[in-house]
Amino acid sequence: MALYLTEAEVSDLLSMDLALESLDEVFRARSLGQVGNIPRARLPLGRGSYNLMGASWPEAGIVGHKSYAAGAGGASFHVMLYGTNGEGLLAIIEANRMGQVRTGAASGIATKYMAKEDASKVAVIGSGYQAETQLEAVAAVRQITSATVYSRTEKRRKAFAETMSSRLGFQVEPAETAEAAVQDADVVITVTNAAEPVLTGEMIEPGMHVNAAGGNSWLRRELDTQAVAMSEIVATDDIDQARIECGELMRAAETGHFSWERLVRLDRIVAGLRSGRDSDQQVTLFESQGVAFEDIAVCNRLLMMAKEQGIGTELPG
Amino acid sequence: MALYLTEAEVSDLLSMDLALESLDEVFRARSLGQVGNIPRARLPLGRGSYNLMGASWPEAGIVGHKSYAAGAGGASFHVMLYGTNGEGLLAIIEANRMGQVRTGAASGIATKYMAKEDASKVAVIGSGYQAETQLEAVAAVRQITSATVYSRTEKRRKAFAETMSSRLGFQVEPAETAEAAVQDADVVITVTNAAEPVLTGEMIEPGMHVNAAGGNSWLRRELDTQAVAMSEIVATDDIDQARIECGELMRAAETGHFSWERLVRLDRIVAGLRSGRDSDQQVTLFESQGVAFEDIAVCNRLLMMAKEQGIGTELPG
Repeated sequence: MALYLTEAEVSDLLSMDLALESLDEVFRARSLGQVGNIPRARLPLGRGSYNLMGASWPEAGIVGHKSYAAGAGGASFHVMLYGTNGEGLLAIIEANRMGQVRTGAASGIATKYMAKEDASKVAVIGSGYQAETQLEAVAAVRQITSATVYSRTEKRRKAFAETMSSRLGFQVEPAETAEAAVQDADVVITVTNAAEPVLTGEMIEPGMHVNAAGGNSWLRRELDTQAVAMSEIVATDDIDQARIECGELMRAAETGHFSWERLVRLDRIVAGLRSGRDSDQQVTLFESQGVAFEDIAVCNRLLMMAKEQGIGTELPG
Repeated sequence: MALYLTEAEVSDLLSMDLALESLDEVFRARSLGQVGNIPRARLPLGRGSYNLMGASWPEAGIVGHKSYAAGAGGASFHVMLYGTNGEGLLAIIEANRMGQVRTGAASGIATKYMAKEDASKVAVIGSGYQAETQLEAVAAVRQITSATVYSRTEKRRKAFAETMSSRLGFQVEPAETAEAAVQDADVVITVTNAAEPVLTGEMIEPGMHVNAAGGNSWLRRELDTQAVAMSEIVATDDIDQARIECGELMRAAETGHFSWERLVRLDRIVAGLRSGRDSDQQVTLFESQGVAFEDIAVCNRLLMMAKEQGIGTELPG
């Protein structure tokens, strides 16, 4: 019997630790060639787009996809899981909250394996829906003692700082500029829909780790070409998708500031096949694409928990 | 509120006429550039594969996808429909029966616009799950007075002949060979999983229309290169997919018996932008790929009817 999980049920079940564990596991599986992936395909709608992406993880017994129609009235995300041994449909999971947490967790995994061990200060550029889980994930993998946040609207960055200070138990301060936010940070998160760079080479300091987690489109970029060029290790969760959607790497490659040969698969770093950082002086960069195997891995755990706890609605049929 | 429709509910709602109407409409829309399509992507599973394909039709207010995990224990198909104006999820529809009917209907549409007007005799090669709706669809668009069927297992072709004779109201005769079945036929349907050609150039007669509707894989082919070469008009429901999956056209093109430039979009024929047949002597061929816009078009109609009739289960959330 297939299970339907609502947003409310997912929110009750899902924690950042669960998402971090799921992603660690699926990245290791991927490094062994056990994970299949269908990159995101998009269809334009009048005001927005429709997105479809799939993945398989036969060793875990699951295959499935995420779909979403994003428009002016917000977006509606769903993950569908099938069994790989003829079980048919296993679950349909509403995936707005799930996606927010897994996108944070992907940056958390990158930070765990790429940031300095003693990283303690985080800067966040952006204060939207996705920014909260980004900061939460980084705080789950390092001993963070302070954070700064910059976004264009003063009121919003102040609200973000207040909310996150009380949630995470360390001080989150709003900053008046991106430059001021980033100063002395060990980990920098960019999570904006900026068309023009919010993080420039001039703002980069030795030893920084950057998670670029904003909107995926070749039309946008959060880092300028100099910031990309200064990053000695550049990793991504999916190279295929980065080559068609990662605006800052595409621009940097086109202008000779970056070579695609340098782009490392995060799963190889997680599995210890590649170093995520060679010294405390290196600048490292994670380009988050958001891929379907991350979604099915987290949803598989959600489904297991839902079954154990008797949560969810059985589908007819 | 989104609706879930089971196989049983779909079977009650869906008729061949409804599917034919839906496809006629969506092919016309596609010829106007109003339909978006994401070709089928596949991931291999241990014993079978996972398939994902999507489409949009903003003028009809819908976008969505079909997914299925096909393995040793059969296959499980689902279509998910979203609204294109921020309505979010509209429906999840179990799609085994729907797929069978829409695949038949695609050949029905091709036959309607490409076969001789006075076609009366049909030959079917193959007697599996998909063969029934193929014959049913052809019988819905021409005045068919007799049919023959050939498949390798005598028992199965006899059973098919018996079932379809009583269902369609004309005589369906089993034949001992494919050659015998095809002789004097006006419309030939191949709907097999044959790896090697079941329809050869020697069996082709002037004026025949062929629907090649069997399994899609570049490893398989139902027609030999000579049969392809003899087909003066060759149409398909999706050129992109045909170029990567249509084994018989790929083989014929590779060996110089076919040029991709000759391949016509069926939607252009349906819309009258191209002729489907220029004389009663021409041989015409429809290469059925099975594409997602066909699925969402039929499912949109199903959803309308289900709502009108109060059928289906409302999803939680």
